[in-house]
Amino acid sequence: MKVVIIGANGEVGKAVAKELGQRHEIVSVGSSSGQYQADITDIAQVRELFDKIGKVDAVVVTAGALHFGPLSEMTPEQFHIGLNSKLMGQVNVALVAQEYLNDGGSITLTSGIVGENPIRNGANASAVNAAVDGFARGAAIELKRGLRINSISPTLLTESQPKYGPYFYGFETVPAARVALAYSRSVEGAETGKTYRIW
Amino acid sequence: MKVVIIGANGEVGKAVAKELGQRHEIVSVGSSSGQYQADITDIAQVRELFDKIGKVDAVVVTAGALHFGPLSEMTPEQFHIGLNSKLMGQVNVALVAQEYLNDGGSITLTSGIVGENPIRNGANASAVNAAVDGFARGAAIELKRGLRINSISPTLLTESQPKYGPYFYGFETVPAARVALAYSRSVEGAETGKTYRIW
Ligand SMILES: NC(=O)c1ccc[n+]([C@@H]2O[C@H](COP(=O)([O-])OP(=O)(O)OC[C@H]3O[C@@H](n4cnc5c(N)ncnc54)[C@H](OP(=O)(O)O)[C@@H]3O)[C@@H](O)[C@H]2O)c1
Ligand SMILES: NC(=O)c1ccc[n+]([C@@H]2O[C@H](COP(=O)([O-])OP(=O)(O)OC[C@H]3O[C@@H](n4cnc5c(N)ncnc54)[C@H](OP(=O)(O)O)[C@@H]3O)[C@@H](O)[C@H]2O)c1
Repeated sequence: MKVVIIGANGEVGKAVAKELGQRHEIVSVGSSSGQYQADITDIAQVRELFDKIGKVDAVVVTAGALHFGPLSEMTPEQFHIGLNSKLMGQVNVALVAQEYLNDGGSITLTSGIVGENPIRNGANASAVNAAVDGFARGAAIELKRGLRINSISPTLLTESQPKYGPYFYGFETVPAARVALAYSRSVEGAETGKTYRIW
Repeated sequence: MKVVIIGANGEVGKAVAKELGQRHEIVSVGSSSGQYQADITDIAQVRELFDKIGKVDAVVVTAGALHFGPLSEMTPEQFHIGLNSKLMGQVNVALVAQEYLNDGGSITLTSGIVGENPIRNGANASAVNAAVDGFARGAAIELKRGLRINSISPTLLTESQPKYGPYFYGFETVPAARVALAYSRSVEGAETGKTYRIW
């Protein structure tokens, strides 16, 4: 299979590229890294990206920013960070990918545990992650030609503990390699409209 | 209690006003109807609204638009209808209301069954409704002074069947009066971070 990984240079994406790279051709994309560059918050750039790459069998997104900060000070502008980046970025990819995927191909998006288990400073993450899972459920029943879509909801990665640990005291972490298996299940399995919870 | 209902003139809001109006003072708000007018998609108007109304004990939102249409033709602009109106409109109200609510007061938002049970043409609704429920979960653990927040997820109202029936063949409907009981539970009960599923 030809598998596009958007965010392939990130903590999650690297592990997914390693897992799927054992059996498939990987096309790596980042905002500044990878074989191709595109900003997924801009659907025109996503369309250009797929025009260059051409037909593929699977599209994985492991990219997208969120806003973390106290609810009592949150502004709509801050809330829009997650909406425009992690939510619309991934929705943009899904909207475009449905045209560029070969029959039976798949789209795999990334949400996160905070969608279901809230943390302090995480109201934007809870809304956005839940929206990504909801979008995958909603889009799955409309995709044509046997196309599939799932989301992966990881808990904190062991590798990301130095960076985000203080937001997640008491949460068990999982190694990126274990999270990557869920992406393999989504890409190489047959389910659709599912959220794989890795926690 | 002094209860603000934003969307009080709508199909859901009318029933909520009737239920809560039996025991509480209702302040009705709409985009063009009600005692006060405000467009909740604009946080400045929400702030002005609460400046006029002053301190309250409960805020209920039964307003917010979604985009319904096929995934294969969906544009980011269409997807933004639900994000800007039903999601950010309600988030705006919650962000402002946390300052205007009396201690122990509550915020009650409206999502919908499509967040969990998808329908054709409903990808935007699935994402937005799930996001509203996620936001309520996330915000609940950060609200101060005993403030609470919940979401109500109704299935299709019996009263709305003439309007939306064809999107929901096979779904059982519920009378608006029964949905209104869930708003009463949220406002007059003690739970927080919950989604009341009325289906
Ligand atoms: N790390 C965790 O513990 C964890 C847990 C749960 C969920 N998640 C979610 O998983 C996703 C990835 O997290 P991560 O920790 O792997 O992030 P990361 O290490 O910061 O990597 C992000 C990757 O995405 C790319 N990227 C960022 N913004 C982009 C954009 N607008 N357009 C295209 N590419 C973009 C980056 O490209 P460049 O390198 O070229 O800039 C990078 O390759 C996020 O949505 C995060 O919320 C992470
Ligand atoms: N009806 C159903 O079967 C059903 C089922 C599940 C979920 N829901 C959800 O429940 C909510 C209400 O639905 P509904 O059927 O009751 O709607 P509706 O009959 O169209 O009423 C909407 C109400 O909201 C107000 N409103 C609309 N946009 C507004 C804005 N930007 N700012 C302030 N007020 C605004 C309207 O004011 P004006 O009258 O002044 O214009 C009206 O009072 C929606 O989010 C809907 O998705 C409805």
